[in-house]
Amino acid sequence: MMGNNDKNKDKDAPKMVRIAIIGLGLIGGSLGMAVRRALKDVQVAGFSRTVTTARKAKSAGAIDIDAPTAADAVRDARLVVLAAPVMTFPAILEEIAPALMPGAVVTDVGSTKAQVARWAQQILPDTVAFVGGHPMAGKEQSGIDAADPELFRGKPWAIAPGSHAPEAAVRTVISLAQLVGAEPLFVDAEEHDSYVAAISHLPLLVATALFSTANGSAAWPELAQLASSGFRDTTRLASGSPQMAHDIMASNRDNALHWLDRFTADLARLRALIADDDTKPLLEAFARAELERDNFMINGPPRREMERAPIEKIGISDMLLGSRLADLMRGGEQTLRRMEGPDTGRKK
Amino acid sequence: MMGNNDKNKDKDAPKMVRIAIIGLGLIGGSLGMAVRRALKDVQVAGFSRTVTTARKAKSAGAIDIDAPTAADAVRDARLVVLAAPVMTFPAILEEIAPALMPGAVVTDVGSTKAQVARWAQQILPDTVAFVGGHPMAGKEQSGIDAADPELFRGKPWAIAPGSHAPEAAVRTVISLAQLVGAEPLFVDAEEHDSYVAAISHLPLLVATALFSTANGSAAWPELAQLASSGFRDTTRLASGSPQMAHDIMASNRDNALHWLDRFTADLARLRALIADDDTKPLLEAFARAELERDNFMINGPPRREMERAPIEKIGISDMLLGSRLADLMRGGEQTLRRMEGPDTGRKK
Repeated sequence: MMGNNDKNKDKDAPKMVRIAIIGLGLIGGSLGMAVRRALKDVQVAGFSRTVTTARKAKSAGAIDIDAPTAADAVRDARLVVLAAPVMTFPAILEEIAPALMPGAVVTDVGSTKAQVARWAQQILPDTVAFVGGHPMAGKEQSGIDAADPELFRGKPWAIAPGSHAPEAAVRTVISLAQLVGAEPLFVDAEEHDSYVAAISHLPLLVATALFSTANGSAAWPELAQLASSGFRDTTRLASGSPQMAHDIMASNRDNALHWLDRFTADLARLRALIADDDTKPLLEAFARAELERDNFMINGPPRREMERAPIEKIGISDMLLGSRLADLMRGGEQTLRRMEGPDTGRKK
Repeated sequence: MMGNNDKNKDKDAPKMVRIAIIGLGLIGGSLGMAVRRALKDVQVAGFSRTVTTARKAKSAGAIDIDAPTAADAVRDARLVVLAAPVMTFPAILEEIAPALMPGAVVTDVGSTKAQVARWAQQILPDTVAFVGGHPMAGKEQSGIDAADPELFRGKPWAIAPGSHAPEAAVRTVISLAQLVGAEPLFVDAEEHDSYVAAISHLPLLVATALFSTANGSAAWPELAQLASSGFRDTTRLASGSPQMAHDIMASNRDNALHWLDRFTADLARLRALIADDDTKPLLEAFARAELERDNFMINGPPRREMERAPIEKIGISDMLLGSRLADLMRGGEQTLRRMEGPDTGRKK
């Protein structure tokens, strides 16, 4: 690991390839750790609005350079990762846009993709490529103190390239996901936002409401004493970052409300079964849910699959450092076979 | 460990103190393992309606004796634990009642307590004592294959003695909970059922509905690919035993509906915050839930406590085997200080 205590002195050091991470919470910090562990010849520049967070990130080995501004972090970076709360993206994009080097790839790890893609389209210059991303990883604790380089291992990493992204940029983001052990898969930005509203944002709302119902009761002191692993697991998501939760709902409101309403209807159906004197349909409902969930846990997702990123491993070193990148940046991407895009014609 | 392959030959063997466990699923099996590991001089007789379950329990070390009937299991047992689905309790109590030895203590590990106490009161003879119990422990898998002697370690074990239970019987059940590493606490049966409806049965319903909402969607194959640890944790309880879930709702219907309605109202409030253009109250709601949950996870339940079982450890050997039990069974319990009962006057 190269010591680099002086923020400005690296101009004199031999040029290393730089990756910038804007936002150094759980995801940004974990990503920095994982990248630095996997690649010794890459320099990670990080920026956090909070000075103590950036310092912690540096001493935890998540970043090489604690940049004083987001623009400073992205200067000379070939890959820029936005890992701040989604609603701060417009301001960050405005700030970094003039500092981005031509050919830079900008990606993000935000929980919603359609709105982010629109912002990137509006704000970023044509000289850089934007490829949206979303690692489906998290844990109970948030912030740099909870960062873990293994956070992404085996987890899906949704990649929403958009129609204008050059293949080289897409492959760079795929290689980033693979580098940290995640499983990249392509998904259209609009579809992504509907899917994650069901599978991630709805569980967050349900966990929050469930915790609030118990916690808001006058009997909470007694309830809390009886609460065990079932209650803790079901409400875990309520301990995530409030800002992140807020930004998710603000940037994906319609989808969140849609799935919340579907859930409320399903819950009402379950209520009717409980209230019914014939309890056989209730038993069947529990049995069906158990069977289907066990099937999912054991066998994984059903066969009808979204387009997965190519199984072939792409070395990020090749992409960022090697002749391949140079070729691609010089326009060589036209010589590569176009990857198939996601099947956006699929019904939801 | 005493080998005992012949179910009937133990009559000739030196008399060992016997504990009977009726029902050998996750809880019954785990309890047998934990008891046998902790006490070498106790014989655990088990009964399961399913022959293969009983055989598995024996080879997994959960029981010493695979009894052909529930009545055979409880014969000569000083402590009987009902660990079958709650709705089977009336039939089991009818069957074992004539076979119970005078002075036997009967307890259970069922998820609801008021209905069970009524059944015990109606069906069991006056010569035995019933003390309801409920270990707040579980995991994703159910059945004997998932049994684990460490399942109860550090978990609350609710004890609902009822007004007629002799102190000696209560102390026997406390000592059982302590023996397997659980933390016994007293609670009135009716209060228990309301509390667990909030903290355990409502999460079960929510997890089931949440899984069904995603799984019932035409987009499930795509959703499943994006599902990660958040979705898995929030829906974990949907993988529990359907029979157990059914029996919980059937024996605790009013409480389950009451808390389901409170949750639905809280969810509707959260929905209104999401739909509102002013998102500050939404951020505040997420922040409050996070703060309160973190506080709960770090500091545990608030101070206003239910009566805890005495901190003093009661050795189950003393209770079951030693002179103390003999004294107590001869009426010595009058000489012991009455334990304080739960504070049933508390508002919910």
